[in-house]
Amino acid sequence: MSSTRPLGRAADALRPVRITRSYTKHAEGSVLIEFGDTQVLCTASVEEKVPPHKKGSGEGWVTAEYGMLPRATHTRSAREAAKGKQSGRTQEIQRLIGRSLRCVFDLAALGERSILIDCDVLQADGGTRTASITGAFVAAHDAVQGLIAQGKLKRSPIRDFVAAVSVGILDGVALLDLEYVEDSACDTDMNIVMTGAGGFVEVQGTAEGVAFSRAEMDQLLALGSAGIAELVAAQKAALGV
Amino acid sequence: MSSTRPLGRAADALRPVRITRSYTKHAEGSVLIEFGDTQVLCTASVEEKVPPHKKGSGEGWVTAEYGMLPRATHTRSAREAAKGKQSGRTQEIQRLIGRSLRCVFDLAALGERSILIDCDVLQADGGTRTASITGAFVAAHDAVQGLIAQGKLKRSPIRDFVAAVSVGILDGVALLDLEYVEDSACDTDMNIVMTGAGGFVEVQGTAEGVAFSRAEMDQLLALGSAGIAELVAAQKAALGV
Amino acid sequence: MSSTRPLGRAADALRPVRITRSYTKHAEGSVLIEFGDTQVLCTASVEEKVPPHKKGSGEGWVTAEYGMLPRATHTRSAREAAKGKQSGRTQEIQRLIGRSLRCVFDLAALGERSILIDCDVLQADGGTRTASITGAFVAAHDAVQGLIAQGKLKRSPIRDFVAAVSVGILDGVALLDLEYVEDSACDTDMNIVMTGAGGFVEVQGTAEGVAFSRAEMDQLLALGSAGIAELVAAQKAALGV
Amino acid sequence: MSSTRPLGRAADALRPVRITRSYTKHAEGSVLIEFGDTQVLCTASVEEKVPPHKKGSGEGWVTAEYGMLPRATHTRSAREAAKGKQSGRTQEIQRLIGRSLRCVFDLAALGERSILIDCDVLQADGGTRTASITGAFVAAHDAVQGLIAQGKLKRSPIRDFVAAVSVGILDGVALLDLEYVEDSACDTDMNIVMTGAGGFVEVQGTAEGVAFSRAEMDQLLALGSAGIAELVAAQKAALGV
Amino acid sequence: MSSTRPLGRAADALRPVRITRSYTKHAEGSVLIEFGDTQVLCTASVEEKVPPHKKGSGEGWVTAEYGMLPRATHTRSAREAAKGKQSGRTQEIQRLIGRSLRCVFDLAALGERSILIDCDVLQADGGTRTASITGAFVAAHDAVQGLIAQGKLKRSPIRDFVAAVSVGILDGVALLDLEYVEDSACDTDMNIVMTGAGGFVEVQGTAEGVAFSRAEMDQLLALGSAGIAELVAAQKAALGV
Amino acid sequence: MSSTRPLGRAADALRPVRITRSYTKHAEGSVLIEFGDTQVLCTASVEEKVPPHKKGSGEGWVTAEYGMLPRATHTRSAREAAKGKQSGRTQEIQRLIGRSLRCVFDLAALGERSILIDCDVLQADGGTRTASITGAFVAAHDAVQGLIAQGKLKRSPIRDFVAAVSVGILDGVALLDLEYVEDSACDTDMNIVMTGAGGFVEVQGTAEGVAFSRAEMDQLLALGSAGIAELVAAQKAALGV
Repeated sequence: MSSTRPLGRAADALRPVRITRSYTKHAEGSVLIEFGDTQVLCTASVEEKVPPHKKGSGEGWVTAEYGMLPRATHTRSAREAAKGKQSGRTQEIQRLIGRSLRCVFDLAALGERSILIDCDVLQADGGTRTASITGAFVAAHDAVQGLIAQGKLKRSPIRDFVAAVSVGILDGVALLDLEYVEDSACDTDMNIVMTGAGGFVEVQGTAEGVAFSRAEMDQLLALGSAGIAELVAAQKAALGV
Repeated sequence: MSSTRPLGRAADALRPVRITRSYTKHAEGSVLIEFGDTQVLCTASVEEKVPPHKKGSGEGWVTAEYGMLPRATHTRSAREAAKGKQSGRTQEIQRLIGRSLRCVFDLAALGERSILIDCDVLQADGGTRTASITGAFVAAHDAVQGLIAQGKLKRSPIRDFVAAVSVGILDGVALLDLEYVEDSACDTDMNIVMTGAGGFVEVQGTAEGVAFSRAEMDQLLALGSAGIAELVAAQKAALGV
Repeated sequence: MSSTRPLGRAADALRPVRITRSYTKHAEGSVLIEFGDTQVLCTASVEEKVPPHKKGSGEGWVTAEYGMLPRATHTRSAREAAKGKQSGRTQEIQRLIGRSLRCVFDLAALGERSILIDCDVLQADGGTRTASITGAFVAAHDAVQGLIAQGKLKRSPIRDFVAAVSVGILDGVALLDLEYVEDSACDTDMNIVMTGAGGFVEVQGTAEGVAFSRAEMDQLLALGSAGIAELVAAQKAALGV
Repeated sequence: MSSTRPLGRAADALRPVRITRSYTKHAEGSVLIEFGDTQVLCTASVEEKVPPHKKGSGEGWVTAEYGMLPRATHTRSAREAAKGKQSGRTQEIQRLIGRSLRCVFDLAALGERSILIDCDVLQADGGTRTASITGAFVAAHDAVQGLIAQGKLKRSPIRDFVAAVSVGILDGVALLDLEYVEDSACDTDMNIVMTGAGGFVEVQGTAEGVAFSRAEMDQLLALGSAGIAELVAAQKAALGV
Repeated sequence: MSSTRPLGRAADALRPVRITRSYTKHAEGSVLIEFGDTQVLCTASVEEKVPPHKKGSGEGWVTAEYGMLPRATHTRSAREAAKGKQSGRTQEIQRLIGRSLRCVFDLAALGERSILIDCDVLQADGGTRTASITGAFVAAHDAVQGLIAQGKLKRSPIRDFVAAVSVGILDGVALLDLEYVEDSACDTDMNIVMTGAGGFVEVQGTAEGVAFSRAEMDQLLALGSAGIAELVAAQKAALGV
Repeated sequence: MSSTRPLGRAADALRPVRITRSYTKHAEGSVLIEFGDTQVLCTASVEEKVPPHKKGSGEGWVTAEYGMLPRATHTRSAREAAKGKQSGRTQEIQRLIGRSLRCVFDLAALGERSILIDCDVLQADGGTRTASITGAFVAAHDAVQGLIAQGKLKRSPIRDFVAAVSVGILDGVALLDLEYVEDSACDTDMNIVMTGAGGFVEVQGTAEGVAFSRAEMDQLLALGSAGIAELVAAQKAALGV
């Protein structure tokens, strides 16, 4: 498959993935994940309480917040804390991360406690939400291992791995793991979240300008599935499991 | 195909769809759309100005806002205006409606003016976002016809029809156009937005609890495509085109 | 009395009043009230709790919120939920609706529960606050009847009917039930809220530009009293009492 | 007329009224007005610009803001600046003050400039909104005299005096100028704003608990009219006109 | 020492200080403090509860809020309650006032209750934060005496006096208690908070444009210490202790 | 001098200081500064416009924003963007950083453009504001060098170095560069900002519990001055100047 991608990357190739555990010292799980030049710091915090809708249920909760440092991007974007509200995009992403993680968690096995994921983008170059999900899983895994080590949990409530990748069609070519220049130019953009077992957790495809066909969708799903298998392998390598 | 759906509806059947044009008198387009007991008032307002990022571009803009009356739902939900902010869910939906409409609009042909869509749910029974998109298209179409009638536009900037439907898997059965009791019980939930020509505009599939397989996704996409063809026919009938 | 009102309406005539009960299905009371082209959806929601200042008092509470769909008006007005706050006008109106309803309620007889009124204007053509009060009473009445039917109340805590109408002076002529073009042109504008027994609950008169005399006020109060008697008759007819 | 009012005040008597001009040094008009123990600092600020809806109209604007120091009241109330929003009551009052002042202003004669009134309650003992209006007029008058002295205006755009007073019915007795203990106990409460010529600018009557009759309203209007004549005399004395 | 200060004030002289206790009637402590033309109303309110971080600690809390009337200043500044948030400057000042007061309070001896200080600037002419601290102490002292008089406290939890003053360098001359024209022109500006015993509570020095030397700092600290001794004497005189 | 500081650090010793330039790729200046375990990412963004108060002045502007990742701390703190406002502490710190930088900038020589500093704490262990100032200077320096390299500036508008350090008294011993456990235990806490030439830019000393003496202040100022000389040396080494 020929390619004109930056750095000669093949259409079906991920950018270099780096997962650094224990990146900061306070959080129960702290992971810097890099998809090429995209860098996201994912922390997992354990709190021994649950939100109101889970109180007394015997079940725990996993939720996420997402943010981008103002100068993570090419031009500075306004600080959401200073503007006094999170954008619709931010809320969409953090809801997606939370749902994706919960899909592989047995909330009853977690017990009435919460895992709060924070994904903060230090440098953005496309794929910040997919890197966030992929890194958040590793941070959550570390937090769970800590609970087991402390005797608070007997077995892990995590039922499977979960990872995410973006795919898209640019000039008729299906590409895996879009970087910024590709993402902003592509016709169709899809974010795929899958489990280690190959099940779909989320599929979000969006046509930019021109609707996409069923054949294109099939191509993108196949490309994404292959990419996620590689990402799950990277998670396993990082965790040494 | 056997069914245990409310009112004996078949798994691949839409709820009764009713589209009432000119529902209120002030808006350039005003449509009440009903998917069974779900009722959404969709208005299209024309403004002869564009947001900052389009100024001087020669192109127009189409955007949407979404709201739910506090007692549109089974139990009263807090009024967003009183709480002082729109929920993440609200923002997600209104961004989806806007993107979906823009996908069938030739913004250059619209000229430097805006069409603002307001989708307000009077009664909710599942599928408010898909009803909103389907009704919003008809309201926007009426607004465009008004611009043509006034001589402000020579030809329509609308390139195709666009409609939306939800599909899901409940107890292993793929269902079209979920109503509330089905939506809250189902394992997988997917919203599909397609053009009249059958192209995909948006696909948003979410696993609730258990990941879904590629085979299930294929089944849902087929079910949704058929449903959208029916909805586009309903739009055409309502518009008399 | 000669008249140049739209549609040849007499100076002392109400616009056609229509009251549709059970307009939506979820609320304990749901009324669409129309004063001519003004349409307001009034719902009453029962909650088995009271606000902090009533806790432990043995008394209930009745309160109201008011909103206007963005395109209820001639030109689109900004959505308050998107702006992040309710205008002073909105707050003034919802406080007025709440006070008016409470005036005919025996809060001790209601018991420690709340009735929350939502008045949402679908189409505005003058008199939205007076239509809201008049319709809200019917919705609250239905909610109370539901509580009696469920055995939660033995007798109705409602002591009297309450309805509201606007009056004004335009070019020296006192007019009943102003529609939008009259309202925006008139010199003096008064909103009157009265009980079925003919007592005043609220009188809010405002001079627009020129102060009004005692004689004019007397004329307006007489006109309003007569109008409210007709509205109470319409409420009774709608409720079949 | 017998009375059991605090300090033996007659039912138709105002509390002692004190109007101190030039109370602070920076504002174009600065008045401390006292109705008994109620103390409000009213300042008038001149700005050589108008709000957007008046730009290019050749007309000026008069508007008002109202606030209460947190410990102006018996128990401390939360600071609105700290809570991040003004209450509905605050907004209602400041809108009332603005409308009342504008009613005696010839906005065209004011020219394209604004007078901003700030009414800040230093100590509250009932009647803060009526004291605010009465004092704000004197502050605005001083600001206008300053514009004339500077040659910016040839003649005063003020067409008449305006003042305000509260009246109410307590245990069947109509009382003028309610102080706090009366206000919180009374059955009916009315705020009346009138011009020096005796015209009505605003009448806002509210039943607290029991509706009031037409005869009671007549009694209250007469009582209020007499009280306002006294207040206008006090304004004239303070201004030396 | 020669001087070109307004009104011929010496470089090491305070402006006339006036402290008026019981300035308003509702608060447990209410003090108008004047540093020349700067006038701040300081009230102390006692509440028989503590913020969450002190609950169950057996200790009390002292905190402060600060505000400026919109026309306390030369040109009108926007009302923070209307803007919907307090400025960074406001928050800085109110945090400083709270810390300064707490430094002389034995919070355990206060018991689980709060003293809330409100400092509202009626007229500003430089030094509003230092006047606030100095006046707030007197108001807090009065509130404490009230608690002792009511038998709620056996002994005062106040361990020492606390007062504050500004100092600065203008054209090479160190000046005490800057008024507005000096403050806005000076090169270095320092606020000093000290106890009656001469200990430092807060020192906040800021270079405006040019950094200041250690010698200049020594000069400013000496000037400020002397000024605070005078202010503490004024507090004692006002309190009659 | 004996010491019981963590890791045997001497009372007058800084923690290891690391300054990494070009830490992220998009910003005109991007510096990771570490004071021991405290890590702050400081970016400098150049914008070719100035805030309103500088428009047309011929002068530029330098300002700063500060944030802390939610899990930079021992226990997770709420995300300010999600809460909808910045804390008073955050605002205090970002105002301090901005003032400190401006003190060494010739704003006229910068021309009508802005340098926006963002200091985001990745990991907190005491001294985040002093590390921020010290790192922000290096980032601003890099941004200025970029402007010179692009020919937009002929000479640097930076007049001197600026750095900051904290000092405090713990159990009677004056300590340089407090880490978290020391900071939360100490009696007196002072932040000092100085230029390379040894002038004071800001001095902020706060007594925690007990007032501090002049002798203690002198000791702290001497300790801080020595520490800042070391920090300026580290800045020079990092910049290779």
